[in-house]
Amino acid sequence: MYGNKESALEPTVRTTLKRHPERGAFEVEQIQSILDEGFVCHVGFTTEHGPAVIPTTYGRVGDTLYLHGSPASRMLRNLKAGLPVCVTVTLIDALVLARSTYHHSMNFRSVVVYGTAVEVKDLEEKAAALASFVEHIVPGRTAEARAATEGELRGTLVLALPLAEASAKLRTGGPIDDEADLGLPVWGGVLPISTTFGAPQPDEHTPAGAAAPDYLVGYHR
Amino acid sequence: MYGNKESALEPTVRTTLKRHPERGAFEVEQIQSILDEGFVCHVGFTTEHGPAVIPTTYGRVGDTLYLHGSPASRMLRNLKAGLPVCVTVTLIDALVLARSTYHHSMNFRSVVVYGTAVEVKDLEEKAAALASFVEHIVPGRTAEARAATEGELRGTLVLALPLAEASAKLRTGGPIDDEADLGLPVWGGVLPISTTFGAPQPDEHTPAGAAAPDYLVGYHR
Repeated sequence: MYGNKESALEPTVRTTLKRHPERGAFEVEQIQSILDEGFVCHVGFTTEHGPAVIPTTYGRVGDTLYLHGSPASRMLRNLKAGLPVCVTVTLIDALVLARSTYHHSMNFRSVVVYGTAVEVKDLEEKAAALASFVEHIVPGRTAEARAATEGELRGTLVLALPLAEASAKLRTGGPIDDEADLGLPVWGGVLPISTTFGAPQPDEHTPAGAAAPDYLVGYHR
Repeated sequence: MYGNKESALEPTVRTTLKRHPERGAFEVEQIQSILDEGFVCHVGFTTEHGPAVIPTTYGRVGDTLYLHGSPASRMLRNLKAGLPVCVTVTLIDALVLARSTYHHSMNFRSVVVYGTAVEVKDLEEKAAALASFVEHIVPGRTAEARAATEGELRGTLVLALPLAEASAKLRTGGPIDDEADLGLPVWGGVLPISTTFGAPQPDEHTPAGAAAPDYLVGYHR
């Protein structure tokens, strides 16, 4: 059902929005573009102590989302054992100022993925998955940075979560005020939000005067 | 145990970091400042279909975090019934570029809150809670925007989650490379990330030429 960017996912009981269904989207291209723009996901799972939500980085290759970390990570060990997981990525695009406090809102794009993750054991897939974490954040970086050694690959737990049961949710546009409030002398509209990047800051091991790589100087999201 | 900003929370089995314990923080001031800088939280809970993680806005008054929404919201109805909840707020401060792909990282600040939410029924507390959602996002706005009517207050479900079992987690600084990689001809350091704001965009009901309020023109986070 995937692979083709113009395709759409089937809604399920978990991905169907009960409230504001008009904000839901199931197009693969939409879902992928939100995932690719985010820096971290929030991973939700249930432990013996109740629900937990942990922020972590991720990678994507085609229709697979990858999570990774230490083999000692409680979260990853739980998920590897087949615990159901929910992974959410959220981007905030604007503050929406209505004339009433009641109708204030935000413009956002989010993706929620439900499923069960499986461990990636094949070293070749593992290497590609780990490279995707870096390329996801800084495209071009893996051509320069030292690739993972076999020891590093074996010492990292990588989980694959299929992007099969997923949906996007979006809000765009200005405030939606009550008709009766439109005449109030209150400024209404939106304040756009961007993620911007400062000058690259070399550490003490980078030779003085070494130029920062082009993929950092021109970095944008 | 709270109220005093210089105080610290007691670690619990859920808020004690098993990995990188040096990144954990329990100071109330630290926790509050991260919560106050975030725009959305990720709310985790367990449904009959497994874990769910939903992004939503929030407010804070003292040592209480507020969630709100429609009384028909499945998430809020579940939480109101006493379902345990985990609320996480994450801020990303920098991309951390190491010489090996393996040691790439991010600088971040996050807060995780565990607990059980209770419904706010008192209209006065409800009004203060709803105002805190707007003030949290745009300080100064509630002095101008129309306050919630009694009907709006009654038609909104507000939940209070005590900031009692919570912790912060932080990473700062540059890459931590393997000694053997330090001589590689690879740029290492950090790329700082900021959240910035565009010019306020009035909607079609704001009179042409009306100046945007100072709290928007000078907005920063």
